[in-house]
Amino acid sequence: MELVESVRKQVAANRFPPKGAILVVAVSGGVDSVALLHILLPLAGHYSWRLVVAHLNHKLRQEAKRDAQFVEQLAQQLGLKFVGGTAEVRREAKSCKLTLEEAGRTARYRFLRRVASRYRAAAIVMAHTADDQAETIVMNWLRGAAVRGLAGMRGLERGIWRPLLGVEKRALQRFAKEYKLAYREDRSNRELNYTRNQIRHQALPLLERINPGLRNMLLRSATTFAALEDFVAQMVKDVFHKLAIKGRGRISFHRAAFSKLHAFIQDELLLYAIEYILGSRQGFKKVHISEMRRVVDSPKKVSSKQLPAKLFLIKTCDKITISRYRPKNL
Amino acid sequence: MELVESVRKQVAANRFPPKGAILVVAVSGGVDSVALLHILLPLAGHYSWRLVVAHLNHKLRQEAKRDAQFVEQLAQQLGLKFVGGTAEVRREAKSCKLTLEEAGRTARYRFLRRVASRYRAAAIVMAHTADDQAETIVMNWLRGAAVRGLAGMRGLERGIWRPLLGVEKRALQRFAKEYKLAYREDRSNRELNYTRNQIRHQALPLLERINPGLRNMLLRSATTFAALEDFVAQMVKDVFHKLAIKGRGRISFHRAAFSKLHAFIQDELLLYAIEYILGSRQGFKKVHISEMRRVVDSPKKVSSKQLPAKLFLIKTCDKITISRYRPKNL
Repeated sequence: MELVESVRKQVAANRFPPKGAILVVAVSGGVDSVALLHILLPLAGHYSWRLVVAHLNHKLRQEAKRDAQFVEQLAQQLGLKFVGGTAEVRREAKSCKLTLEEAGRTARYRFLRRVASRYRAAAIVMAHTADDQAETIVMNWLRGAAVRGLAGMRGLERGIWRPLLGVEKRALQRFAKEYKLAYREDRSNRELNYTRNQIRHQALPLLERINPGLRNMLLRSATTFAALEDFVAQMVKDVFHKLAIKGRGRISFHRAAFSKLHAFIQDELLLYAIEYILGSRQGFKKVHISEMRRVVDSPKKVSSKQLPAKLFLIKTCDKITISRYRPKNL
Repeated sequence: MELVESVRKQVAANRFPPKGAILVVAVSGGVDSVALLHILLPLAGHYSWRLVVAHLNHKLRQEAKRDAQFVEQLAQQLGLKFVGGTAEVRREAKSCKLTLEEAGRTARYRFLRRVASRYRAAAIVMAHTADDQAETIVMNWLRGAAVRGLAGMRGLERGIWRPLLGVEKRALQRFAKEYKLAYREDRSNRELNYTRNQIRHQALPLLERINPGLRNMLLRSATTFAALEDFVAQMVKDVFHKLAIKGRGRISFHRAAFSKLHAFIQDELLLYAIEYILGSRQGFKKVHISEMRRVVDSPKKVSSKQLPAKLFLIKTCDKITISRYRPKNL
């Protein structure tokens, strides 16, 4: 029961989830999520949580239906509420030009959020392990992620709780064996994600030959990067709300104040302004940041630049502005 | 001559090195450093620089002496000052418990700094390429480096200038071929550094199969991480000099002000205080930061903790202190 004890300590330290909370547990039927469910059971008794078992059928494989039935029966046996859903992942991937893995993940999170909202849940609980975390960090790093990606998945973030992020998959397998838990082979993940498989079976083993302590190092670094990201995000938010002049579809900064800031924060502020106007910074890449930098740093007193999503960066004598509206006379 | 032109642009953009500067060029005799020397020559004419060719003999291989002679003759032919040195790298590695590669690098930088100081040089110029940079970043990442390591080598830092950091080794090989430059096979690097070789020949090719744009991505990210590191370093320094109460062998912070800071900055401030007292933060690892965190966060009003290098962290009712002196009555 040491796994139960370690999760209990986590709950006590975070003071989360609160007593009496409703928790939506994402259960695929694989060993990780089945173990998670059984680790949560005694804690649910202790903290008076109500567990809702949620399962999304991606309809990608023949066994998918039997996986769903397995999870539904498991919930029944344990006396827990079951909520099933289906997604046409293959069709969504095609129509949205996503990989199957991306489409699957999007559909899964959308489903879980919907269930959580319907039950007014305090959190969605997911069974991601230390192995998943290490793979995710390597994958993010290979994709060119900055601090946010290197921080990996968070233990507690935007309504999602991942209590097993520090636990190795091996430990969950031992737990399942010890308590004779039945589970389904989790083949979907394995087949769905080509990059993750390359990382799991090729990259990580090779990199671990170079540094045998790699996994632990990645998990430790993730904590540092998470703290750094957190700090930078808070700092940027503070500076933004102190300096930004908010107009309809536009955000301006006084040039004098803006120019005193570190270039790094200037970039982050412009991105924050874009997110503030559009609700997202999707579609903005390093190349756009470089373009904005050039406008900001150029010796020209007045200039402008069109950005993605029909936004404009406008430099006038006294202001730097991100705007939905085409600048006049520039 | 496009390589010459690209370096010239760099000089113009950075306004460095200044006209008439003395530059110590590190020349191993391999293709990179020989190309570097020939790229610098026309610029030296244009900017009235005086180039000093420096070569350190590591005495690790039979050919080492001939490498030194080759570089000396090259300098002579070009009418440049030559400064040679020797190091007993094998002996130093043994006595200081370093790998050959670490001992070699330490000896090399020490030699170059000595030459630079003797000639009152504006900078040491090194031939590190984009390939070296990518390898260094992967190596740092595998070692668990944080932002500083992911920023890789800097183009201009503490008296060292690396004008070829954005240039691929291939381009230098083409340059050498085009201008029929003679150079020596650079075998020392290849044999000396086991980890770097694993990264060059195994890890990078595998990772590039997963993300074919990996190298460029690493170089772009390095710029972001460099800006971030720069920002954090400046920020920590500013906060330190604003808040630190400096005593003999001790640095204190008022607890009220300290506790208002983000945990990330608190950690960095404590490390900065350690560096301020000792002149270095060597020997302080993540585990020591965690220990300090526990003292700072503990509900106890008064407590203390011994740290490496005979330092103490002391928490009193109103102050957090890093001190050389054992706390009394705690």
